Amino acid sequence: MSEDVKVEVGLGERAYDILIGPGLIGRAGAEIGSRLAGIRAAIVTDENVAAQHLEALKAGLDAGRIASSTIVLPAGEKTKNFAALQEVVDAVLAARLERGDAVIAFGGGVIGDLSGFAAGIVRRGMNFVQMPTSLLAQVDSSVGGKTGINSTRGKNLIGVFHQPRLVLADTAVLDTLPLREFRAGYAEVAKYGLIDRPDFFAWLERNWQDVFAGGPARIEAIAQSCRAKADVVARDEFETGDRALLNLGHTFGHALEAAVGYDGARLVHGEGVAIGMALAHRFSARMNLASPDDAARVEAHLKAVGLPWRMADVPGGLPDAETLLSFIAQDKKVSRGALTFILTRGIGQSFIARDVPVSEVLAFLKENHTG
Amino acid sequence: MSEDVKVEVGLGERAYDILIGPGLIGRAGAEIGSRLAGIRAAIVTDENVAAQHLEALKAGLDAGRIASSTIVLPAGEKTKNFAALQEVVDAVLAARLERGDAVIAFGGGVIGDLSGFAAGIVRRGMNFVQMPTSLLAQVDSSVGGKTGINSTRGKNLIGVFHQPRLVLADTAVLDTLPLREFRAGYAEVAKYGLIDRPDFFAWLERNWQDVFAGGPARIEAIAQSCRAKADVVARDEFETGDRALLNLGHTFGHALEAAVGYDGARLVHGEGVAIGMALAHRFSARMNLASPDDAARVEAHLKAVGLPWRMADVPGGLPDAETLLSFIAQDKKVSRGALTFILTRGIGQSFIARDVPVSEVLAFLKENHTG
Ligand SMILES: NC(=O)c1ccc[n+]([C@@H]2O[C@H](COP(=O)([O-])OP(=O)(O)OC[C@H]3O[C@@H](n4cnc5c(N)ncnc54)[C@H](O)[C@@H]3O)[C@@H](O)[C@H]2O)c1
Ligand SMILES: NC(=O)c1ccc[n+]([C@@H]2O[C@H](COP(=O)([O-])OP(=O)(O)OC[C@H]3O[C@@H](n4cnc5c(N)ncnc54)[C@H](O)[C@@H]3O)[C@@H](O)[C@H]2O)c1
Ligand SMILES: [Zn+2]
Ligand SMILES: [Zn+2]
Repeated sequence: MSEDVKVEVGLGERAYDILIGPGLIGRAGAEIGSRLAGIRAAIVTDENVAAQHLEALKAGLDAGRIASSTIVLPAGEKTKNFAALQEVVDAVLAARLERGDAVIAFGGGVIGDLSGFAAGIVRRGMNFVQMPTSLLAQVDSSVGGKTGINSTRGKNLIGVFHQPRLVLADTAVLDTLPLREFRAGYAEVAKYGLIDRPDFFAWLERNWQDVFAGGPARIEAIAQSCRAKADVVARDEFETGDRALLNLGHTFGHALEAAVGYDGARLVHGEGVAIGMALAHRFSARMNLASPDDAARVEAHLKAVGLPWRMADVPGGLPDAETLLSFIAQDKKVSRGALTFILTRGIGQSFIARDVPVSEVLAFLKENHTG
Repeated sequence: MSEDVKVEVGLGERAYDILIGPGLIGRAGAEIGSRLAGIRAAIVTDENVAAQHLEALKAGLDAGRIASSTIVLPAGEKTKNFAALQEVVDAVLAARLERGDAVIAFGGGVIGDLSGFAAGIVRRGMNFVQMPTSLLAQVDSSVGGKTGINSTRGKNLIGVFHQPRLVLADTAVLDTLPLREFRAGYAEVAKYGLIDRPDFFAWLERNWQDVFAGGPARIEAIAQSCRAKADVVARDEFETGDRALLNLGHTFGHALEAAVGYDGARLVHGEGVAIGMALAHRFSARMNLASPDDAARVEAHLKAVGLPWRMADVPGGLPDAETLLSFIAQDKKVSRGALTFILTRGIGQSFIARDVPVSEVLAFLKENHTG
């Protein structure tokens, strides 16, 4: 009798379901228990999510007779570090969980990436369940098995591929998400349209206000996003090819995040991605790959929803173009010395561009630096 | 024109070669370069191995035009910890290695386990080459892709499965290995006979002195061991079944290692395994699974080669039986509360025994405690 939408991630013996709908945390015990019978669980969450929703999740697990312990971490990107990883690993071992038991990530992408990594290395891999509570995590980070932490040398440089056994995206918990965070997640929703679904992007241009308001349009946007991501992941689980398309906007975006020292007060991940997507389209136009009209259309939509879309929108200013370039070159999408970017031939026509000339990128950064 | 023996590990798209023979470090550049063209490498090693053989390896890599940086760690089991993992990961990132470049483990099982884990998590998995320098590493830890570090809650509880692309076992470097370490590695050689190769065990009983002396018998023993391990690994890469047989002697052995606080001056891994194998046979006899004659035969062989074979052989004394049992229960081969052991029906007839009664184990430990 539930109205959940189900999206399947087709990964053979590692295949799993994504359930999307309101009230799923109350049904977590039943949904997990029917797939992983008789397990115990360790919930990993952050202080914000714990304050708002932990009690409801505990009750939901109890209802399905799943015993659980809880690890609460500070909120924010800085938590994706080695010390927190060790803390989660120790807590899971202290709870004496075995390979067949589960780590449950209950939070945004930070909690998902960190605790998925921990689940991937405790006893060389335990069961893992994603319960994403931010829009970004529901449409992106909880799906596909990429886990990890940051290094002082760059974001997400350390981690493993470890697929969840189940993803439960409770759309009602998004009601407590700060608007700024909702917007940031929306950048990744728009990304799927820009990668290869021009009709979805056009639908978002018409319906974004309903997506923000909640209700069926929001569930639809989340389900479409999960389908888009699941398709890419099923084609290229370990990112040896196509999956890199999901990095649209991320090479520029990660450099901006690094430039502000991962200070979420100034720039959160999705905001970096928003600016990065606008820059990727503008750079593609500059390289005569796409029409400037398409870049303008992307910029207009990001602006309409209230997202930052140019470097000048980063509060507190940015280092000079050369420094930004060095952050780009440090990013992991550098292959054998050449710069790799996701560029585009137009809305929904992105592609992997290898050997992008460093000089062009530098000139472009200089031109756009003061916005 | 090389006299190397080649053993293939049949893991489909993750298949790789083990080359065994004298002088391989001098040919490392050629062997690695012919399989992984154009890569750079980070050598991870320990102080003992570096002092004796690092220059020769550097020359061997140079000869094959493989540029390399080096990370030297303290020798010994205590190095398998989180801090050393982070140090290796940082050093590999600092050297700006990419996914296609390689981490080379140049040392015993400690270096192999630690740096294989690092290779498995930097950029979610880079190329990895094993160059084992201890007998134990050549016949066991370098083959099969199990990597990891220790937790205060038990050995090897944290890690990943990450297969090497190549294993180069230079049998000449074993000439600098302390006799005590050679003996410890020999325990794992004997293990393969005891698991399911009774003829190999009988061959060792006749030829062990030649194996210790060096020459063709040593190469033969290493190759047989690698074949035995490769067979098991190919059948069960992720240890969901049969591969657990390789833990013969390890449940008792790990408990003894934990009991001495992983103090290598008192007990090294292979010595723990030797005592553990003798105990597994003796316990099997006590449970009326095997003949006491088989237990006596195992004990006699371990004693002949100079290995410890009973608890009384651990210098400095052991905690009481209850404490030892708690170390066993903490070990990872505990499944859903029941104790799992590798027991035997005789020489070369070992099997996985689940639900071994805790009371029997405790009684057995008490009986054997003072040897
Ligand atoms: N693994 C992947 O494939 C992948 C993909 C995209 C992004 N990521 C990662 O995801 C992270 C960003 O994720 P994020 O934006 O969710 O960040 P986040 O986890 O920091 O969450 C954002 C903020 O929202 C709060 N929050 C989350 N849910 C809430 C709720 N329901 N109510 C109130 N507050 C709530 C959090 O406490 C936090 O303060 C980055 O580290 C990024 O690298 C990973
Ligand atoms: N991954 C696996 O499948 C697996 C299997 C078995 C054991 N192991 C692990 O392997 C480790 C034990 O391996 P180990 O016995 O090689 O220990 P080790 O790496 O500590 O090496 C033993 C000692 O020999 C020295 N040494 C190594 N090669 C030498 C050489 N050629 N000349 C001089 N000195 C040399 C080392 O410096 C060290 O002091 C344990 O941590 C164990 O858990 C792992
Ligand atoms: Zn993203
Ligand atoms: Zn061993």
